Formats: sequence, structure tokens, C-alpha cells
Amino acid sequence: MQRKSFDGMLCPIARSLERVGEWWSMLILRDAFHGLTRFDQFEASLGIAPNMLTRRLNGLVEAGLLEKRLYSERPPRHEYVLTARGRDFLPVLIAMGAWGNRHFAHEGLASLVADVQTGAIVQPVLIDRATGKTLDADSVTFAAGPAADEPMRRRMAFVERGRQSRRNL
Amino acid sequence: MQRKSFDGMLCPIARSLERVGEWWSMLILRDAFHGLTRFDQFEASLGIAPNMLTRRLNGLVEAGLLEKRLYSERPPRHEYVLTARGRDFLPVLIAMGAWGNRHFAHEGLASLVADVQTGAIVQPVLIDRATGKTLDADSVTFAAGPAADEPMRRRMAFVERGRQSRRNL
Repeated sequence: MQRKSFDGMLCPIARSLERVGEWWSMLILRDAFHGLTRFDQFEASLGIAPNMLTRRLNGLVEAGLLEKRLYSERPPRHEYVLTARGRDFLPVLIAMGAWGNRHFAHEGLASLVADVQTGAIVQPVLIDRATGKTLDADSVTFAAGPAADEPMRRRMAFVERGRQSRRNL
Repeated sequence: MQRKSFDGMLCPIARSLERVGEWWSMLILRDAFHGLTRFDQFEASLGIAPNMLTRRLNGLVEAGLLEKRLYSERPPRHEYVLTARGRDFLPVLIAMGAWGNRHFAHEGLASLVADVQTGAIVQPVLIDRATGKTLDADSVTFAAGPAADEPMRRRMAFVERGRQSRRNL
């Protein structure tokens, strides 16, 4: 499969996808959040070929999302446990699941997210921490940050010109 | 590349990935949010092979995230514009970019999200609409919904058992 690395790019979405954007990687993370830790558990859950699963698990370990731990010495057996960086990915998966529930759950809702303390089903919404405003395609735009290089600044100028021209329609 | 379809599964994360989980698809969506619409714009932005770009664009059109529109009759030329379903995907990309900025922006922040009205940089945070609580790996768990089938119920029972046993450590 033809595949270019995004790692040279400054875009944080590209950098994230460089770590989790391979087919299977995000489902492995979902399974890890479900409490699966062992190779055979992931294999049974996903129906994935062992060599592919090994590659994906190694990739997630290298990227610092999973930690490989020895849980049995004889025979030597490893488990894969979410790191702090891996645990911090949960909001992305929740946002993706909420989008899936809104658009593709034609039989009704099968999997939801619940408050661990109350058990109440939660309704995920992405907001700005300071203002509490909902972040969506109408309320936000992209902007260059202090570390933006020239290509990123050009891109963000393009974004801004498009926004202005749509506003003037 | 070996690849199994997740579409038979009820998991909303799997269903979302079935539509956007191919390598390139989410970067094409990012570019569409940046205002890119034409084939040659996506090609130049991503450095992607034309046949691959065609496949990914067609996939996003079939999944209902992009609409293909004729913008020139002679010669016939199409543009690709986000649908309502596609626009609704933005929170997932913002959450992914925020995670990327927290973990991989070693040169500093290059791309941020801003309020369209005030221009202020926003800090994305995923919360529960009803309670306002931040949704993260400590505050939430997964739960079966009304349309859960038997495998999904077994999975959610496994999640719950793991949670209980960790709590009793």
C-alpha cells in the first residue's frame, strides 16, 4: 500500500494520525479501554492476523500509547497496558463513537458512554474550556500558532481567505 | 493489505472507522475543513497518488461525508464539498489535533483552533452536556445501549468486571 509519512508536517492532526492512523490501531486502543490487555484477547476481539496485530501493537508501544509488560515469566508472556498518553486519547474515541451513533446506528444505540460514578449515560460535546461554547464547523476555524512554519502560515492564510469570501457571499 | 470490514459490528467507533479509517481519509477531511475542494488542491496538499486520492474521495462521497459537485461544464470539473454529516465530523478532528498538540508538538504549537467571532484561541475539552463533567479515562466507562446484541452485552459485562476488579485492588 502506498503510504507517505506525515511526520515532517507540523499539523497536529497529521502527527496524531502518524501514531494511530493505521487500519486497526484505533480499534486496538478501543479494546484496551475496554480492559483487554493480552495478545490473544485482541486477536479474538478483532479477528486480525497475528503478524498484523504484532505490527500494530509494536507501533502503539513505540508511539508511547501502550506499555508492554511481562506478566508471566514461565512461559514469558506480555500484556499491553495503556500509558498516560494512551489514556489521554479516550476523548478522540468518544467523539468518534458519538459521531458514529449520530450517523450510522440504524438499529438504535448499541454502545454508549456512562459516568463511572452515577452510571448515567453521558452526551459527549466538545466545548471551549474558557467560554463553554460548543466547538463545531460554524463556531471555529483554524489558526496558525507560534511555531507555525511558512507552509503552515500560507495554509492558514488560505483558510482565512476562504472564510472571508464565504462570509461575503 | 489485509483488511477486515468492521461494518457488521455494532460498535459506533468501528462504524465510524469503516468510513474514515483508511490512511488519508481523515487528512482529506482536514483539508476540506481548511477550504480545499478541488482534486488538484488535495493532491498538492497531501502529495498523494492520483488513483489513491480518487479512491479515498469516492469512499468519502459514498459514505456521505463529501458531496461531488460539477463546478465547470466545459471542461467538466468537479469539486468536493463537506456535507452536513462531514461537517459534523469536525469535533473528532479537533479532539485529535488537541491530543497531537499535547503530545507531539515538540517545536511548540503550529496549528490551533480559534473562535470565528472573537478570534480567540480555544481550548477543546470534551464534556457531558447534562453535567458539564470532563469526559476522560477516569470519569467514564462504556455501557451497552438498547440496541446491543449478545456479543456487545458480553463485551460490556467484561468492561464492567474489569472496572470492578480494578476498584477493589
